[in-house]
Amino acid sequence: MIVQKYKDMLQGKSVIRQLSEFATARGKEIGYENVFDYSLGNPSVPTPQAFTDTMIRMLQEKDPMELHGYSQSLGIPSVRDKVADSLNKRFGMNYTGNHIFMTTGAAGAIAHALRCVAQPGDEVLTFAPYFPEYAPYVNLTGSVLKVVPADTENFQINFEAFDEMLTEKVAAVLINTPNNPSGMVYSTDTIKKLAQIMEQKQKQYGHDIFLISDEPYREIVFAGVDTPYPSKFYDNSLSCYSFSKSLSLPGERIGYVAANPKCTDADLISVMCSQISRGTGHNCPPSIIQLAVAQVLELTSDLSVYEKNMNILYKELTALGFECVRPGGTFYMFPKALEEDAAAFCEKAKKYDLILVPSDTFGVKGYFRIAYCIDTEKVERSLEAFRKFVREMYHL
Amino acid sequence: MIVQKYKDMLQGKSVIRQLSEFATARGKEIGYENVFDYSLGNPSVPTPQAFTDTMIRMLQEKDPMELHGYSQSLGIPSVRDKVADSLNKRFGMNYTGNHIFMTTGAAGAIAHALRCVAQPGDEVLTFAPYFPEYAPYVNLTGSVLKVVPADTENFQINFEAFDEMLTEKVAAVLINTPNNPSGMVYSTDTIKKLAQIMEQKQKQYGHDIFLISDEPYREIVFAGVDTPYPSKFYDNSLSCYSFSKSLSLPGERIGYVAANPKCTDADLISVMCSQISRGTGHNCPPSIIQLAVAQVLELTSDLSVYEKNMNILYKELTALGFECVRPGGTFYMFPKALEEDAAAFCEKAKKYDLILVPSDTFGVKGYFRIAYCIDTEKVERSLEAFRKFVREMYHL
Repeated sequence: MIVQKYKDMLQGKSVIRQLSEFATARGKEIGYENVFDYSLGNPSVPTPQAFTDTMIRMLQEKDPMELHGYSQSLGIPSVRDKVADSLNKRFGMNYTGNHIFMTTGAAGAIAHALRCVAQPGDEVLTFAPYFPEYAPYVNLTGSVLKVVPADTENFQINFEAFDEMLTEKVAAVLINTPNNPSGMVYSTDTIKKLAQIMEQKQKQYGHDIFLISDEPYREIVFAGVDTPYPSKFYDNSLSCYSFSKSLSLPGERIGYVAANPKCTDADLISVMCSQISRGTGHNCPPSIIQLAVAQVLELTSDLSVYEKNMNILYKELTALGFECVRPGGTFYMFPKALEEDAAAFCEKAKKYDLILVPSDTFGVKGYFRIAYCIDTEKVERSLEAFRKFVREMYHL
Repeated sequence: MIVQKYKDMLQGKSVIRQLSEFATARGKEIGYENVFDYSLGNPSVPTPQAFTDTMIRMLQEKDPMELHGYSQSLGIPSVRDKVADSLNKRFGMNYTGNHIFMTTGAAGAIAHALRCVAQPGDEVLTFAPYFPEYAPYVNLTGSVLKVVPADTENFQINFEAFDEMLTEKVAAVLINTPNNPSGMVYSTDTIKKLAQIMEQKQKQYGHDIFLISDEPYREIVFAGVDTPYPSKFYDNSLSCYSFSKSLSLPGERIGYVAANPKCTDADLISVMCSQISRGTGHNCPPSIIQLAVAQVLELTSDLSVYEKNMNILYKELTALGFECVRPGGTFYMFPKALEEDAAAFCEKAKKYDLILVPSDTFGVKGYFRIAYCIDTEKVERSLEAFRKFVREMYHL
């Protein structure tokens, strides 16, 4: 019989997806260039030419049997080694290839990491605002996601609430920095304090509490921002990465879990992940994409457009009277809505063809997300729509 | 804390993997060309040039944002439509793109299909001999895999045992035709009888019993063999496919689930699969591979080598006195060992650098698998090793 659990999940249609579909439909009416579609976190700059060239060269020159052959379920050994080397060089870590498990993007990485350390009866903590897909990743391990209320002052961490919620039942703490949707980067102070509290609680409870760090925006950070590598500050840490944003390859589903060499069972994490993937049937990311990405580990797309867009929007919106913490990275910003009901606010914005995402979907009330991964020219044209919107609707 | 369940899985190292590692190590001693490595089911012929050309053309000509952009989690709509059309044309079905869910190979397909219809408390039946990875796919749904004993007469179905084991607890029946490891193809008579029994039991129990059909070897069938399309004969059927063997792309992880348009909740299966993939973090197969495969749906690698190898080996082994049912497809054959203990038999064969897989790993005692997806030249050279082996060890 059809399993009800998954059938039930069909009811909860993503708000972001609905807004994106609205934008597409509206685009058919008035031309998509006239819809200021700030709904989706899709990279707006192409992958580096070197990635494309590498793919073509491999297809032309490599033995197809080798190129398209089975990858080990852990990932191709040479690729894992290269990822480890690159992380060591950049962040002063001591990973070996054995600590790296190649995944289908950050989604695969987080889902595997969670299954390694969380099980029925456990709790997993994350911090509002948070990426709503964390819920299914956690739910399907059988553990329960608990959300620490936001620090709306500066979107770092509400440590008082965290300290209270970090009970004996917590198996893992899931962070995302640079953050979707707030655009904030946890400072070195924040990460240090987080690590210190977690270490103290580990001792107190006598069991491991893992830090799972979701880092798809690691490379999108703005000038002068302090961007610590979280795993550097806490031994029991699993770093989850995706190349979707840095190399503009969201459809190619490629990323990894990096287990801190100092974590409990560090040498087992990747082989455990490969057992987990046996059961989910995921097995491994595609060979050719693994091999190609390993050739361009030190490159990124031209990410400068995101900072440019942020500066334009931040200046205009704060001038218009919006309260907004200045983003340190990503391609999101998270201003306070002009009325308590963020959904009502975003609904009104739609009349000006401004597609904004209400913050409720991220576990916070009264804010909205702008995904400014769109052409700068369109960002500039949207300013007049923002002005008109707040003037006509809120008399600002 | 580290989840013990996955840690425990690390104990059960695959026999096939161990044999393959032995073959590689032995190859370093005496040259791999002198090891008759029949252990792994890895395609031995390259992907069609048209696949490579399509990949290169897309990389050269397509907008990288579009080419590498997010796929819907169900798969790219145009790809799903093309898969449906191709199946309809070949098998007289009525699929639409909505019935197709793109997956990371047959592993992903089976894991998703099982999660749609099996849950804790249920049983899933399969038939010996069977692919050992079925166990983790089933186990991680929380249901229990039960194995119907083999019909060792002709490796079709032991219907007496099946009828007895098809109790009210059974939620799904998992078949694999053409079969790994036996090489046998279920005849139209077998499929009809299977469908008839399942339909009768559905009525009797008043609930659905799904047929999950694992078909990665669908295209590798030999001259004159009757090869029915199972879903044609049973409404509640989910067909699971991989392009790994037909297009020699095992590392690229691409396949699909096709839900029979007449099955219960036919229009929901693919969207349920996309909810399942949210939890496992699998999301979707890589965009570029989906798009490329959709351009070569009607092509295969040159698969003729497998039939050629089968004929050479079948002739020689039966002449040597082996009992063996003649394979109808795949690149496997499954002769009876020359002593009861198949593991002991295969251990002795290793002395002649013949790497054979004992049947215990497939749920049958006393047989062995030959994966003859190797160069014909090597197959021919292996014959003398077989002769020497059976003469010296078994005085044949």
